[in-house]
Amino acid sequence: MALLVQKFGGTSVGDPDRIRAVADHIVRTRDAGDDVVVVVSAMGRTTDDLLRLAHDVSTAPAARELDMLLTAGERISISLLCMAILDRGLPAVSFTGSQAGIVTDTSHGKAKIVDVRADRLRDALAAGSVAVVAGFQGVSTSRDITTLGRGGSDTTAVALAAVLGAGACEIYTDVSGVFTADPRLVPEARRLAHLSFDEMLEMSATGGRVLALRSVEFARNYGVPLHVRSSFTWEPGTWVQKEGVMEQAIISGVTHDESEAKVTIEQVPDRPGIAATVFRALADDGVNVDMIVQNVSSAGHTDISFTVPHDELARTLHVMETVVKETDAAGFSHDPHIGRVSLVGAGMKTNPGVAAKMFEILAGENVNIEMISTSSIRISCVVNEDDVPRAVAALHKAFELDREQA
Amino acid sequence: MALLVQKFGGTSVGDPDRIRAVADHIVRTRDAGDDVVVVVSAMGRTTDDLLRLAHDVSTAPAARELDMLLTAGERISISLLCMAILDRGLPAVSFTGSQAGIVTDTSHGKAKIVDVRADRLRDALAAGSVAVVAGFQGVSTSRDITTLGRGGSDTTAVALAAVLGAGACEIYTDVSGVFTADPRLVPEARRLAHLSFDEMLEMSATGGRVLALRSVEFARNYGVPLHVRSSFTWEPGTWVQKEGVMEQAIISGVTHDESEAKVTIEQVPDRPGIAATVFRALADDGVNVDMIVQNVSSAGHTDISFTVPHDELARTLHVMETVVKETDAAGFSHDPHIGRVSLVGAGMKTNPGVAAKMFEILAGENVNIEMISTSSIRISCVVNEDDVPRAVAALHKAFELDREQA
Repeated sequence: MALLVQKFGGTSVGDPDRIRAVADHIVRTRDAGDDVVVVVSAMGRTTDDLLRLAHDVSTAPAARELDMLLTAGERISISLLCMAILDRGLPAVSFTGSQAGIVTDTSHGKAKIVDVRADRLRDALAAGSVAVVAGFQGVSTSRDITTLGRGGSDTTAVALAAVLGAGACEIYTDVSGVFTADPRLVPEARRLAHLSFDEMLEMSATGGRVLALRSVEFARNYGVPLHVRSSFTWEPGTWVQKEGVMEQAIISGVTHDESEAKVTIEQVPDRPGIAATVFRALADDGVNVDMIVQNVSSAGHTDISFTVPHDELARTLHVMETVVKETDAAGFSHDPHIGRVSLVGAGMKTNPGVAAKMFEILAGENVNIEMISTSSIRISCVVNEDDVPRAVAALHKAFELDREQA
Repeated sequence: MALLVQKFGGTSVGDPDRIRAVADHIVRTRDAGDDVVVVVSAMGRTTDDLLRLAHDVSTAPAARELDMLLTAGERISISLLCMAILDRGLPAVSFTGSQAGIVTDTSHGKAKIVDVRADRLRDALAAGSVAVVAGFQGVSTSRDITTLGRGGSDTTAVALAAVLGAGACEIYTDVSGVFTADPRLVPEARRLAHLSFDEMLEMSATGGRVLALRSVEFARNYGVPLHVRSSFTWEPGTWVQKEGVMEQAIISGVTHDESEAKVTIEQVPDRPGIAATVFRALADDGVNVDMIVQNVSSAGHTDISFTVPHDELARTLHVMETVVKETDAAGFSHDPHIGRVSLVGAGMKTNPGVAAKMFEILAGENVNIEMISTSSIRISCVVNEDDVPRAVAALHKAFELDREQA
């Protein structure tokens, strides 16, 4: 008898019918002999509805109160899910983040877990109950209610799986796993049966929307196997785990991301400390810089390009005006109409020529590459946003991602 | 500088506009020099909406989970109200029942307060903040979330006022105070400026819907002056406090209640223990018996009549079938079409003849009296439900309740 942590996202518990279906599945899991800890998000659009109310009553809702407000959402879903499980004759007990022992720092809205004191969950399991825990939330070291930010429920689930020594953490969502590309762009996209943590990290970081980056990092650090699967079909999905347990495909998937804009600071004097000056100024202003590319120097000057989220572009341009003066750069430019296309695959490490082939394919599609950045298992190209769908489809086909790979 | 506890019911915080209006009033109160602890109910129909969800997912929602669910309602209203207060530049901190130190027994759905550990509220007040507390909820001695049942937010407010030594507990609602009769039946009904705790208790117990019986008992036991007033007009309302601080009117008001049915057990042998047998059987079945009247015995037999809420009538009749056999009674009858009309007034104690005058007035209106019961400051008559409006109007006029009394 193993312990499974099962996490259900907002669409999985979006209405009473869905909640009953989830309760049925938990009963099936228990009948198969496993103990279950369940982590639940707020129902459907609840969080958005609550946010709208907050902005109705306040021009700038206070962070502590916003956390108090939003945590009402999971409180509703955990209690309803427990009622449905109890209705099926299986003991179940709900726990808020605080009751489940999720202790965080005091950063409201994006708190980090500093401790998990899961005694009450262990007691509930020992008593034969299903423990149903509110995702996304915790209690701070100063006893205030906190939320964990984007992907918070996944993080709760992975943290509990790590602390309780679960055999796996199942992430139930509205898609049936991780795909070789976005099926809306590539109808032939195939569900992957296995992925390494590193590949999943690269895919999450470059536009794969199934798992939040942070929860994958957490799972990798604690060696918690993840199983991403559908709460609508209940079929087996994608396993994300340590390398070595599976054959590694050269390429696992093509991801894309159109949420960023490109900024270039032109003809900066090429001397030590310049990059530090630029990115320290942005960091101090809270801008999340993603890709950074610096070209080789010519005549003692260089161009530095980077990408930032669209909604941080205005702030970035404001910072750039000062930075250009401080660094004696010639000026700066920006382009909001870009997209990033990435190839991710652990097998890339031992297969030279993948980058070259990627560039040839894009050239064959007449797609101009504006920036390139690579890691050992990923190659990303920034292109014009209009070229993204064509680039993704062409790469998916050329690397034969529609076929099962050895 | 005094401390005021201000309690706002569901309609008072029913939408963002109302929440902003309440925040404005709290700022006015603080500007006038008083410290403020606020107790809030769930917004508008939130509790009903959550109950509907519970019954959608479960045939018989578990009591512990129902409490977990319903307490989401006040969590939403306290955080939104704090955001609105903070928006006006006044420091404010929200507290769940648990954070406010409301410790209860473990009776989910109708928990009783066993302790109030208000240290965090005292700290917030000392720091110059408005403390905004979730009404209706607490945490049990076994660390589970509980609710206080009907009128629970009023009870929270009164308990905090008692423990914190508040000068008064203001109960804001959608009516402007306690009236001499229901204005829907008696357009001339007048708002009372003052009432004693005992009078308010009798009015709440006999159909006055403004304050829950339990919170008035609590206020009387701890000597907390209540001020019932409107959150729509903000005008002064009705003060409920100890006798002696005000002139006592002979009659303060006429109340009525059409929520009960009458049951009569006929020709019971008149011997010791019979009444005990009847009402023990009902109590064991959880029936809330209200009025009980036993007529004088004739020929060794007597009739016992009592009233029960309509929704407990079926259960009552079921119990009666057994009781009739056990007691050798002749049989039983019931009448769901009754209403109770009551006169309440502390001055009644020292003014004989009030009962006689009441019966004369009802006779003059051709209203037949089916049952009578009295306390030292109340006279109640059970009549046909069709006669209730006429009886209330006639009593209100004959006792000159439309005029300010000495």
